[in-house]
Amino acid sequence: MAVYTEVDDDDLIAFCGQYDLGDVLACKGIAEGVENTNYLLTLSSGPYILTLYEKRVNPADLPFFLGLMEHLAAAGVPCPQPIAARDGIALRQLAGRPCVIISFLAGMSPKKPQALHCAELGRALAEFHLGTADFAGVRANSLSVGAWRGLLESCGQDANRLRPGFYDELANELTELEADWPTDLPSGVIHADLFPDNVFFRGRYLSGLIDFYFACNDSYAYDVGICLNAWCFEPDNSFNITKAQHLLSAYRQVRDFSEPELMALPVLARGAAMRFLLTRLYDWIHTPEQALVVRKDPMEYWDKLRFHKAVSSPGEYGLGF
Amino acid sequence: MAVYTEVDDDDLIAFCGQYDLGDVLACKGIAEGVENTNYLLTLSSGPYILTLYEKRVNPADLPFFLGLMEHLAAAGVPCPQPIAARDGIALRQLAGRPCVIISFLAGMSPKKPQALHCAELGRALAEFHLGTADFAGVRANSLSVGAWRGLLESCGQDANRLRPGFYDELANELTELEADWPTDLPSGVIHADLFPDNVFFRGRYLSGLIDFYFACNDSYAYDVGICLNAWCFEPDNSFNITKAQHLLSAYRQVRDFSEPELMALPVLARGAAMRFLLTRLYDWIHTPEQALVVRKDPMEYWDKLRFHKAVSSPGEYGLGF
Repeated sequence: MAVYTEVDDDDLIAFCGQYDLGDVLACKGIAEGVENTNYLLTLSSGPYILTLYEKRVNPADLPFFLGLMEHLAAAGVPCPQPIAARDGIALRQLAGRPCVIISFLAGMSPKKPQALHCAELGRALAEFHLGTADFAGVRANSLSVGAWRGLLESCGQDANRLRPGFYDELANELTELEADWPTDLPSGVIHADLFPDNVFFRGRYLSGLIDFYFACNDSYAYDVGICLNAWCFEPDNSFNITKAQHLLSAYRQVRDFSEPELMALPVLARGAAMRFLLTRLYDWIHTPEQALVVRKDPMEYWDKLRFHKAVSSPGEYGLGF
Repeated sequence: MAVYTEVDDDDLIAFCGQYDLGDVLACKGIAEGVENTNYLLTLSSGPYILTLYEKRVNPADLPFFLGLMEHLAAAGVPCPQPIAARDGIALRQLAGRPCVIISFLAGMSPKKPQALHCAELGRALAEFHLGTADFAGVRANSLSVGAWRGLLESCGQDANRLRPGFYDELANELTELEADWPTDLPSGVIHADLFPDNVFFRGRYLSGLIDFYFACNDSYAYDVGICLNAWCFEPDNSFNITKAQHLLSAYRQVRDFSEPELMALPVLARGAAMRFLLTRLYDWIHTPEQALVVRKDPMEYWDKLRFHKAVSSPGEYGLGF
């Protein structure tokens, strides 16, 4: 949640003059997305989102992200669409940043996701995976298993400030994950960050997916593991098997799991927990204590990791198979 | 700029069901206002602003603020309007906070105000003062001359961290202001915080005033002094007499200054500089250094204060009289 880059009003009016979208009525910084600056831009033709890409996004990746949004929409997966200016180009420059105007998507993120939301999410995730199967873009996952040890080492013994002996526990856990990590599962483009914040609903129906800026190529079932962690635990970190059952059943009605994918779910979900644990740990250690930003709790993901470690069969996720 | 209070989506839908404004399409936290939580609420009937009042606002003052907005609009001063639910009541509760839905005002705040903006501002300020002359509400100015010494003392010798000997300089300055402060000027409801952030323009025309949460009863010319400081200095703190001339001339075309008001302008503008200097100093001292919030520079207002102290006649503000 942040507005990082201010846009001069005259510059904005000149910028919007390059589009066939009418006059600028208002432009308000919104608390959406943590990596980029987002404005809700009200033009006389309606509302839009103006995204300015900040330094954490590699400009070379932007054509991948924008192409993905267009490809997904064509495949029937609801998501915002980059809008081209009169010259046909969507990716432009404003206030010294790469930027894009995207369409406004109605809907709200669920603050307390229920089983019915998880079913909608499962279906949409499978449609995302099927819908990107023929997408030509490729982007390596820079936060996959190969990156985790480096992340842990850059946290170092400061990890023990959260819990005595934590660094060694994580290093041991990482050794196991590195050894057991599956490499030959069905793969393609995954969202990789499909938290409730990034999914809009209207009433009980999913109305869209947003924030594709972690999307990359990796195994589909790893994306499922990320979603199990993000959607199927209660605020006290207990696992809600009903939510998982709804998510997984809805997913497999659209794209069924292979036997190796099912067997790998526990280790993938454990690895997904490790990935978010490590980036949160990194932020926790490198954000000043007094900073008025919410540091997300790394220990939440330690609880989730340990849950998956104790799972002996995918049936414990509510899956009959 | 902040979202302090999160609103649960189900609670929001139930809340909006009390109005005749249609379905909730979206609700996004916006970076507008620093004292309250503001959402841009998109309903099927159009965009609105949902304001939740945080702890720094006294709930007992809310009827004054909302009544003022209604009174001003009736007097032709463009500003957002509180919208009543079906039961006729605008001031309600949501997420444990007093709240209100107000109308959406098109326009953008000028990032680099020009002389033409200052003229528009001067005219609107005078219309505000005339338009509130018959407003029945009364609210004391809790940040006027009588409050400044207490503010300075709560900063204490920490003031000297900005500039050696600063505490004593401010205390001496305060003694002069307290002695010279005019008490019998034409008075009424003033905005008291009419910075460019709080004024919207469409192109070169002023489209509205917002953020009435410092409005109070005080002398009209003091409000003019606040605006001179907020609109007529350059980024290097030099005074732009052309901007002041535009502001003051446009003001007096709607509501002329009395002779005592004109003569008091320098001391009022100096006092206005002291008021913002002291609240900034207070925030500067009481905000942790590493906090990721922008601490506004108190010294900017020290420069402005010294400028006004050297003014020997209102002609130096560009006023012929």
